[in-house]
Amino acid sequence: MKPSIVKVFALVVVMTAALTDVAQAAGPAKPLAADPLPSWNDGAAKTSILEFVARVTTKGSPEFVPPAERVAVFDNDGTLWAEKPMPFQAFFALDRMKALAPQHPEWQTQEPFASLLKGDMKAALEGGERAVVQLLMATHAGMTSDEFEKIVSEWIATAKHPKTGRLFTEMVYQPMLELLSYLRANSFKTFIVSGGGIEFMRPWSERVYGIPPEQVIGSSIKTTFELRDGKPVLVRLPEINFVDDGPGKPVGIQMHIGRRPVAAFGNSDGDLPMLQWTAAGSGPRFCLFVHHSDADREWAYDRASIGGLNKGLDEARAGGWTVVNMKTDWKRVFAFEKP
Amino acid sequence: MKPSIVKVFALVVVMTAALTDVAQAAGPAKPLAADPLPSWNDGAAKTSILEFVARVTTKGSPEFVPPAERVAVFDNDGTLWAEKPMPFQAFFALDRMKALAPQHPEWQTQEPFASLLKGDMKAALEGGERAVVQLLMATHAGMTSDEFEKIVSEWIATAKHPKTGRLFTEMVYQPMLELLSYLRANSFKTFIVSGGGIEFMRPWSERVYGIPPEQVIGSSIKTTFELRDGKPVLVRLPEINFVDDGPGKPVGIQMHIGRRPVAAFGNSDGDLPMLQWTAAGSGPRFCLFVHHSDADREWAYDRASIGGLNKGLDEARAGGWTVVNMKTDWKRVFAFEKP
Repeated sequence: MKPSIVKVFALVVVMTAALTDVAQAAGPAKPLAADPLPSWNDGAAKTSILEFVARVTTKGSPEFVPPAERVAVFDNDGTLWAEKPMPFQAFFALDRMKALAPQHPEWQTQEPFASLLKGDMKAALEGGERAVVQLLMATHAGMTSDEFEKIVSEWIATAKHPKTGRLFTEMVYQPMLELLSYLRANSFKTFIVSGGGIEFMRPWSERVYGIPPEQVIGSSIKTTFELRDGKPVLVRLPEINFVDDGPGKPVGIQMHIGRRPVAAFGNSDGDLPMLQWTAAGSGPRFCLFVHHSDADREWAYDRASIGGLNKGLDEARAGGWTVVNMKTDWKRVFAFEKP
Repeated sequence: MKPSIVKVFALVVVMTAALTDVAQAAGPAKPLAADPLPSWNDGAAKTSILEFVARVTTKGSPEFVPPAERVAVFDNDGTLWAEKPMPFQAFFALDRMKALAPQHPEWQTQEPFASLLKGDMKAALEGGERAVVQLLMATHAGMTSDEFEKIVSEWIATAKHPKTGRLFTEMVYQPMLELLSYLRANSFKTFIVSGGGIEFMRPWSERVYGIPPEQVIGSSIKTTFELRDGKPVLVRLPEINFVDDGPGKPVGIQMHIGRRPVAAFGNSDGDLPMLQWTAAGSGPRFCLFVHHSDADREWAYDRASIGGLNKGLDEARAGGWTVVNMKTDWKRVFAFEKP
């Protein structure tokens, strides 16, 4: 070839490649739909979600899942909203204890209350699990269900996070809100399956997450039906009924939903049995762990943390589950962040 | 006035009244919608249902109830399907016991199994509640949830009622099926709240009643999560978890739904707490008892019957609740009846 022809040929090759790139970037001629997950960066995690939803909702596809079976379950603490410096229900219990303290002079000397009232968490927690249960029962039992709902509603309307100064209901993850909406727009029924108290979440789950009370599953204390002066009431008793954590999560799912989810979302080893139960179903399944990797915008913790993600990270790798790297996969963590 | 004028005046009054009657009977000029409850005879019971639904679904009405709050709860045995000569789950337990007997030679001498295998119900029931629990645990526990679902599905597909020779799923009340559909067409969410086993109802509730498993509430035994050779399973344990009957019904409603129903349907005193709980809510509420009054087409029983309606009849009268007289209010009881 003459040098000039070589040059022209090279130019044609380069131009063809460039035009192909442009054409591919532009995609098909039809206008692109608005991004349903705008707070998610493009990457493997986002792609895995979009691809799974496309697979199970495409009619005629061998992996099509009928709408009635599109059950998606979400852990709450650390998956839908933050859980540091401690699960937010613990702030509720402490605030409630302070509010009730004047009616309980004996708490000034009785543990764990005495230490808690002095703000000495470390001393209070020396009582171990028993101390936590005592605090929970003192603050969560002894009233009717209607009264408890009112107490929670009033608290959640004003209580603020100690670090950000935001309402706890603002400490929800914007990318997860988008994911909830996206799944519902694709006829998924979204459920919360949390170790937190079922009646602690219900008063605000519909407003904040779009999840109605009948789709909230959580831990509970026993309740009894009574007629008080002829008026029926449900009274909350100081006795644990069900712990919806770890191996309790698949049990809670079976009790409340009665069918196996096709998608499960968690962030800790306490969610692992729920993800295992979901993954073991036949047909297409989707499992995702949120990995707290962003110490600047949120918190960074996993293997070493109490209630953290350790075994789950290994199982996710082995099972090909999606692991969200908060730092790189999420454009925004909270809605209140400056974009 | 002259007599002739009086006559003309009287005629005008009479004609006006007559024309008004005709106009009212004819209703608005638009064509009437098809009757949503064709198996219900016209009468107070049917009218009370239609009027209640109109009141709570009319936008702008002071009694309007938003769709999300339109929760309707239904007892199952004796309310949605028949329960004579005994609750159908008891037939399942007996059939299951017979199927399992070859693996349990000890049952030949051990009560209540020995008497039950001989068909001597009376002797078997001398063991009282303990005998019933033993039968239930022997037939309902010891397998996984998936296995139990399969066992129930196979039984319900073929087992027949001893008197009518019909499948048990044909022993459902046609007027109640229409009522379920009518409520759902008006954006009610319909739930079963039954003393029967939650996992006994779920495998067929969607097909027969249009009620999905997550809207079935019932009695349960404990379940535990296990990994068997790495495969997650839920194992049914021989231990009672929750009795969803009598005062247990409002507790089950709170646990599973988390909001008070606006409408409740039952047929026995075991449903009374559920109806009381429903009725005591603020705003419009609807409570209905099915009264078994038709010995020809179904069965006739109430005050004297075990699991019958006694206190409930009095409370219904006092509270202005609807009592369905099966004999006069229902045009058809079962779909298989000749019209």
